Amino acid sequence: MTTRRPTEDDLIARFFAPLAAEGGLRLRDDAACLTPRPGHDLVLTVDALVEGGHFLPEDAPGSVARKALAVNVSDLAAKGAEPLGFLLSLALPEAWTEEWLADFAQGLGEAARDLRCPLLGGDTVRAGGGLALSVTALGEVPSGRMVRRTEARAGDVICVTGTIGDAALGLALRRSPTWASALSDEDRAMLADRYLHPQPRIGLVEPLRDHARAAMDVSDGLAGDLAKMMAVSGVTAVVDMEAVPLSTAAGRAAAADPALLDLILTGGDDYEILCTVPPERLESFRTAVADRGGALTPIGRVIEGSGTPVFKTPQGDRRFERGSYSHFE
Amino acid sequence: MTTRRPTEDDLIARFFAPLAAEGGLRLRDDAACLTPRPGHDLVLTVDALVEGGHFLPEDAPGSVARKALAVNVSDLAAKGAEPLGFLLSLALPEAWTEEWLADFAQGLGEAARDLRCPLLGGDTVRAGGGLALSVTALGEVPSGRMVRRTEARAGDVICVTGTIGDAALGLALRRSPTWASALSDEDRAMLADRYLHPQPRIGLVEPLRDHARAAMDVSDGLAGDLAKMMAVSGVTAVVDMEAVPLSTAAGRAAAADPALLDLILTGGDDYEILCTVPPERLESFRTAVADRGGALTPIGRVIEGSGTPVFKTPQGDRRFERGSYSHFE
Repeated sequence: MTTRRPTEDDLIARFFAPLAAEGGLRLRDDAACLTPRPGHDLVLTVDALVEGGHFLPEDAPGSVARKALAVNVSDLAAKGAEPLGFLLSLALPEAWTEEWLADFAQGLGEAARDLRCPLLGGDTVRAGGGLALSVTALGEVPSGRMVRRTEARAGDVICVTGTIGDAALGLALRRSPTWASALSDEDRAMLADRYLHPQPRIGLVEPLRDHARAAMDVSDGLAGDLAKMMAVSGVTAVVDMEAVPLSTAAGRAAAADPALLDLILTGGDDYEILCTVPPERLESFRTAVADRGGALTPIGRVIEGSGTPVFKTPQGDRRFERGSYSHFE
Repeated sequence: MTTRRPTEDDLIARFFAPLAAEGGLRLRDDAACLTPRPGHDLVLTVDALVEGGHFLPEDAPGSVARKALAVNVSDLAAKGAEPLGFLLSLALPEAWTEEWLADFAQGLGEAARDLRCPLLGGDTVRAGGGLALSVTALGEVPSGRMVRRTEARAGDVICVTGTIGDAALGLALRRSPTWASALSDEDRAMLADRYLHPQPRIGLVEPLRDHARAAMDVSDGLAGDLAKMMAVSGVTAVVDMEAVPLSTAAGRAAAADPALLDLILTGGDDYEILCTVPPERLESFRTAVADRGGALTPIGRVIEGSGTPVFKTPQGDRRFERGSYSHFE
């Protein structure tokens, strides 16, 4: 029996090595090695998550781990890429415990299996502040087939997968708002789960590659992410607010408090795919998504011009000048 | 004129987009895209750096940026890999300034050019604690040629590039130790620079791939890194302490205070390459390294067995049970 504090190598061997993919060399080397598949491009994305910004101190370690991986895999999915693996950079707070790390590693391992995105390597340090983590995810697409954010064209139909606003409402529920009483227990549980456990749309990468012209994932709010995609494509958009797909729970919340529509459209953490599609491809795209158990909803049109997209509502036109949750301001 | 705080997108466009490689798509997409070279494997490494652990609050932003990239490129070089590019994850403290970020980005851009490792993508968030950053670097080797840490064999000669201990002494100099008076101004400047500005041995990747059996970079101290490499290779080692290459400045410091040898061997931040070589390859290896303007010094032998490597000294055998600087304990 030893009372020695575990070293970083001990922690790697105990908690992370069991999660490593073949390319991770059981984490016994100081780098990972990956043989790219011929005829494919690599897609690379990185996301930093910090306590207070992307998760709360009371969130379960396994949920934090899953979310860190899921938000990156969501970026890959929106590019039409299949996940290949990820690298983890973990800055633990002074007061870390082995129990916390064990739960974190277990959640990470489960998420890696579910999302088919194994651990390739990592680095663990102790930080002065709160927990901070960063995940770099690698994916692959057939050569030249990455779906860009910059390619939306006037005339394209704007679509989103799944439903919008659930995660933002799930987070808002923690403050016990008055509208919570309009929801059933199931509604509340569903919304809370959508915040804690994003489900990247990895099942839809093939139809996305086949049919979409431009795509990105909705992480910072539909209104702001759409504005970004339009701006980098040199176009703008008109969206029918009533067409934006809401879950039954979100619909009930919005009926109880119509002001929640702003939160729904700007709250973020949706991890759905926002994309534009040439009109003649829309039906084939919807069918292919439905065949894979997904949902795709047209919500508007790309138009010539610049400036913030317009959301058409029964009460008139709306523009969301600050359309995103920003971790920055 | 606007007094609006810059958004993350503003910062990316202003400071980071000019640094981006072709695969980084001018950072206008939310993922990077890289076409792997046929017949090559990818080598991947990630390092987290936190204030207080890897750099000090008073360090110049450009030096912090350079170091963050250099420590990762050093990992690649020790695997025999040519750099392809990197992704940056940056958690800025509450009190960040645009001036700080401008200096950081400038240093990063210069380092990316010097180290031939361009920016592919990144994520910037605001954190509650001190500055934290994480770099994921990608490199390539001809298929199957990554130099592993796990392949050292009994009989191999242990070698290091360059000189050992300079960076640790450079950091120690900041506390104005008594031995500092034994050094010239040039000595002190050289040691300080070795801490601030690591020089990854990217020029030596080809001879390393051609001749070395096992390799890693010396980041956590020669004694501890050697112990790790021996342990994962299932062997141990005997080192001739007097053969460990010291710079003139480090030699003077050690003459003034012989106790500094411990710091030299365990202080870390060397970013030299530690490797093992079959004896019959040693001379060709040394010649190839010298042809590229480098230095390679044999310091000991790999032997059968397990346990902490032995350092032979005129005063008897030494073992460094805690042979590394650890960011963890």
